[in-house]
Amino acid sequence: MPADTIRSRDILADCETPCLILDETRMQQNIDRLRRHLAPLGVTLRPHMKTAKSIDVARRQLDGGCGPATVSTLKEASELFAAGVGDILYAVGIAPQRLERVQALRAAGCDLTVVLDSVEQARAVVAAGADAPIPVLLEIDCDGHRSGLVPDDERIAAIGRILVDGGAVLRGVMTHAGESYGASGGPALEAFAERERAAAVEAAENLRHAGLPCPVVSVGSTPTAHFARDLAGVTEVRAGVYVFFDLVMAGIGVCSVQDIALSVLTTVIGHQRDKGWIIVDAGWMALSRDRGTQGQAVDQGYGLVCDAEGTPLADLIVIQANQEHGIIAPRPGSGGVLPECPVGTRLRILPNHACSTAAQFDAYTVIPRGAAGLRTWPRFRGW
Amino acid sequence: MPADTIRSRDILADCETPCLILDETRMQQNIDRLRRHLAPLGVTLRPHMKTAKSIDVARRQLDGGCGPATVSTLKEASELFAAGVGDILYAVGIAPQRLERVQALRAAGCDLTVVLDSVEQARAVVAAGADAPIPVLLEIDCDGHRSGLVPDDERIAAIGRILVDGGAVLRGVMTHAGESYGASGGPALEAFAERERAAAVEAAENLRHAGLPCPVVSVGSTPTAHFARDLAGVTEVRAGVYVFFDLVMAGIGVCSVQDIALSVLTTVIGHQRDKGWIIVDAGWMALSRDRGTQGQAVDQGYGLVCDAEGTPLADLIVIQANQEHGIIAPRPGSGGVLPECPVGTRLRILPNHACSTAAQFDAYTVIPRGAAGLRTWPRFRGW
Repeated sequence: MPADTIRSRDILADCETPCLILDETRMQQNIDRLRRHLAPLGVTLRPHMKTAKSIDVARRQLDGGCGPATVSTLKEASELFAAGVGDILYAVGIAPQRLERVQALRAAGCDLTVVLDSVEQARAVVAAGADAPIPVLLEIDCDGHRSGLVPDDERIAAIGRILVDGGAVLRGVMTHAGESYGASGGPALEAFAERERAAAVEAAENLRHAGLPCPVVSVGSTPTAHFARDLAGVTEVRAGVYVFFDLVMAGIGVCSVQDIALSVLTTVIGHQRDKGWIIVDAGWMALSRDRGTQGQAVDQGYGLVCDAEGTPLADLIVIQANQEHGIIAPRPGSGGVLPECPVGTRLRILPNHACSTAAQFDAYTVIPRGAAGLRTWPRFRGW
Repeated sequence: MPADTIRSRDILADCETPCLILDETRMQQNIDRLRRHLAPLGVTLRPHMKTAKSIDVARRQLDGGCGPATVSTLKEASELFAAGVGDILYAVGIAPQRLERVQALRAAGCDLTVVLDSVEQARAVVAAGADAPIPVLLEIDCDGHRSGLVPDDERIAAIGRILVDGGAVLRGVMTHAGESYGASGGPALEAFAERERAAAVEAAENLRHAGLPCPVVSVGSTPTAHFARDLAGVTEVRAGVYVFFDLVMAGIGVCSVQDIALSVLTTVIGHQRDKGWIIVDAGWMALSRDRGTQGQAVDQGYGLVCDAEGTPLADLIVIQANQEHGIIAPRPGSGGVLPECPVGTRLRILPNHACSTAAQFDAYTVIPRGAAGLRTWPRFRGW
């Protein structure tokens, strides 16, 4: 048994459960991997803070610096700005009611950019920026996932014109290949990455042909960021869950189960031996209700079960989750064998979706890279 | 338009979204309804605090008193005890590691009872209670839902004997008809309530025939609590989600949609008009990933959409949720019509599962019963 394995089990022995364990070594490997992949492609990485919502994690993702960063809420923007991150993209379509908070952050010195895809929003941004112009990216729809204008939509130039004529700062375009989560394997993910790139570049050309500026061409999702082979015309890439990875990402081949840096430590509280069930104290309040692997080739239930050292127990998953109870059993049809786990045994559960599982906790319990003991890194939440 | 309807929309106008709205009038009606139903049945109500996790809500459920209450975590127990609630059942099978915290609460004066269903746990409770005995209920399995011993299991008396001989306080038995959430309609729910009652009473008799004490016979779930017609032999009933209700409870006929006291206020941030989509700023981070109505006769997606006054917009649901984006559309096949909702429009979403949606927020924004303005009631979380 390797030395760090013994250490991991031992230093977790006193943790109250359920608790959220972060393996810093794996996290750093994930951070390094994407940085290495993107370096030769000539783009800037703008990590998405919505996954970790942690200043400690952000410092490592941002290489100790002040950005650039992506956020999903103004709460994230405020927390990061207070911690010294100055270049922030708020990547959710702007609601007019939120422009006052945007302007307060900008007035305090935060270089905050907003995103929009409609004439209504553009007019609101122009109006709110009468005295202090607001920077904007136009949201482009590259795959029918949710928001955005398709790359050849005439409204792209029309909205760009409203912004520029109204005095806003048109910074460019952004898109997110959210449908790539439904693809699987290298060729399909490479195709998604190229589709995402092509859509953003086409929309940028659309703006430039109309005589409008487009210095920023922003793309990204964790799958496409890792499988992009050519990013010609793109200036920056966004990705979030790459920092921790999860079973959904493993299921489509973006990472391996061994790359997953996040797990929920839990304690066995009972058994139904006739049914082959182990009952643990991690229910959906700890694991979240996310069933992101349900539609994948391998359904991981509410999470894949590991021993206290973090080694997966083959084919053992959380088959059901109540609020504070999880039921562990072999994956149906797998022939997996239930290990002997007396009441009090510690196990770890790998999450389907790191963003949603992490959101159930107020802090990470960090197994650090060095020989030091556990650390606690707080998370922020809310809007 | 009734006066309170105008008020509700107007006083919510300044709320930042997404936020969690609690209609105190509906909540109080729900509280009163269960109290009225149980009064003639000769049982005590021991409300479950896991749904609201709020001292303000607890005061109303507990009639201003000091209990009895049920909790799912020791964090809930600590918070409630600090607020003056002294009689608490911790209704999740006890992990030996948690007995130190149990004893600390008891030493401070909290009458905290634990639950168990194994010899191992009984021995741990005896050992931890050598100087200060710990009260225990044995968990009974009435419907195969998760934990507990079936009512005629010989281990019931054996475990009871270990507890009594070891000096623990054997208070009785408890069961929870969790499978009743999968039943639907009055007759099926009445049958579940009777099954739950019969299982608990049989287990109690099992203990008594062995010469062991069983003063407490505790049953409950929100569906069975409302549909119990006879509770002979039962001393107390537990229920949690009854305080707010939700779409799952409406789907099985325990309440109507109009009884649901909880909703998420959201803002329209975009459209995909070709697809008939409205995009709002309530994604799964606000609504939770709970899809509890997925297997019901009417699938409500991630929640049923209402206007800002809380009136349901027929057949409009949240069909998809990303982290901070919800996609609203007519329920597939319903023929529902998408209303005109410009960017900035406020809507309210009724939750599938009140416990999980409420858990996404740190506070309730309360529309009070009187003419007063909004109030904020904090929630606690963690373990």
